[in-house]
Amino acid sequence: MEDDFHKALRQTAELMETELAHFLPTNEGLEKQLYKAMRYGVLSGGKRLRAFLVIQSADLFSVPRIHSTRVAAALELVHSYSLIHDDLPCMDDDDLRRGIPTVHKHYDEATAVLAGDALQSLAFDILSHADTHPSPEVRIALVAKLAHAIGVKGMVGGQTMDMYADAVDIDIITITRLQQLKTGALISFACIAGAILGHAPPAKTQALKAYAHDLGLAFQIADDILDIEGTTEQLGKAAGKDEAAGKATFVSLMGLEEAKIHASMLAEQAVKHLDIFGPKADLLRQAAAFTIERKK
Amino acid sequence: MEDDFHKALRQTAELMETELAHFLPTNEGLEKQLYKAMRYGVLSGGKRLRAFLVIQSADLFSVPRIHSTRVAAALELVHSYSLIHDDLPCMDDDDLRRGIPTVHKHYDEATAVLAGDALQSLAFDILSHADTHPSPEVRIALVAKLAHAIGVKGMVGGQTMDMYADAVDIDIITITRLQQLKTGALISFACIAGAILGHAPPAKTQALKAYAHDLGLAFQIADDILDIEGTTEQLGKAAGKDEAAGKATFVSLMGLEEAKIHASMLAEQAVKHLDIFGPKADLLRQAAAFTIERKK
Repeated sequence: MEDDFHKALRQTAELMETELAHFLPTNEGLEKQLYKAMRYGVLSGGKRLRAFLVIQSADLFSVPRIHSTRVAAALELVHSYSLIHDDLPCMDDDDLRRGIPTVHKHYDEATAVLAGDALQSLAFDILSHADTHPSPEVRIALVAKLAHAIGVKGMVGGQTMDMYADAVDIDIITITRLQQLKTGALISFACIAGAILGHAPPAKTQALKAYAHDLGLAFQIADDILDIEGTTEQLGKAAGKDEAAGKATFVSLMGLEEAKIHASMLAEQAVKHLDIFGPKADLLRQAAAFTIERKK
Repeated sequence: MEDDFHKALRQTAELMETELAHFLPTNEGLEKQLYKAMRYGVLSGGKRLRAFLVIQSADLFSVPRIHSTRVAAALELVHSYSLIHDDLPCMDDDDLRRGIPTVHKHYDEATAVLAGDALQSLAFDILSHADTHPSPEVRIALVAKLAHAIGVKGMVGGQTMDMYADAVDIDIITITRLQQLKTGALISFACIAGAILGHAPPAKTQALKAYAHDLGLAFQIADDILDIEGTTEQLGKAAGKDEAAGKATFVSLMGLEEAKIHASMLAEQAVKHLDIFGPKADLLRQAAAFTIERKK
């Protein structure tokens, strides 16, 4: 039986496919290849956990779904751009993503670079539109937060640290900071976007920030564990890559059992930050459990 | 003797080096390489014509320079990101830019991809900040215009057309559309940004749009002519590349003499659109002449 959480996550994923398809351009001219590659890279499924977090956080403040869905779509576009660029031969050199060839394998590298670039700008395009929120103050606040979550003090900064992490001795503090940037920044944006859309009071914004912080780390530790325990078929991407590359991860630094305990503790801690919202935050609580129990 | 225009252009370029250096991050951690690559790719000179167009267009409406300078910086960051990605081996594969090795030659490809990505988000970061303009309406309008100028219906769309232009028969209409996107979109943004910052009435916005349209095309035709007539030393980048690659350009399609006449005609036409502004637009008039007379 599908529980409430899995039903809501599935419904979000279905909604996102329709929403994202609507925002992605179609064209038959010379740009056709770019448009196809963008759709290919974005519409190939995925859990849409980030979209789920935007919508659920916004629901806490009764934000109309018509607004939160657009922000969720913008965030999924950014997440997709980052995967497309991350998979490039000069970066992680991955051939497989969500069970199908990566964008540069299915098309070519130049198209993958350009598709990622265009997806980033499309995300800002969507956020800037009056349909996303009637208030320009809210829209510009979302733009500022997203730009920050992407940039040198966000995801791209984390990806850079990750690239050079092999070369130096990494400790738990460094890997924590690295992952807070690399995967944590977009997850934080997801939850804070809900607070921005909902004109949340500072205490509630703070609670969502703390939740996102712990959830993001738990999510990444679970990812490191899946890289060890999962199969390529299950994950839809190459398994065992970190170990083969001799990469520092939470598992390599803490050991498998300790990493599992740490992830559980973080997920529990994430849930505690939601007390302020009462039962309205139940789906977000279940998201924390899902984060560490998922099989892909 | 340096005339008014060249003096103003030089002063803008000097101002931009300081402004851009201020916005570009510095750090000694694992991200050091990224930060260095961003500075290297952005602070390596350049004419800063796009910055000049923002500032001069905004001056027509007496916009405080403190605002137009920030928008100019954001635009130069986007222009720099596009050059860094364009130079990648999978794209134009250029080793030289502004007389020095390109970012991926001096650093590596992964760093070049990430530096470009971070420069795009930094541009939106700057535009979203209250220092850029006190009004959120103005800031969000700038974000919307810039996102559009970058995306599939702007620069990235034009770059994609350019990539596939070799494979098909290109005519003057197609190359014009291609270049209106590839170089025209950011030049249009430059001039329209001045109008947005200055709350320009529709007739004046329209005049700047028309000016930018003709100027952008004249600029690109001049670029095609320089690729034929310039030397690598003069240009600071490889000369004769289009012809060697058998690429369709305005020169290959019209012939050299016809292309020169067409560029002059467009520059004259650009100047005519400025009548509505009287003598205040003299520097923009001279920019049109410069665009087709420049040697790099």
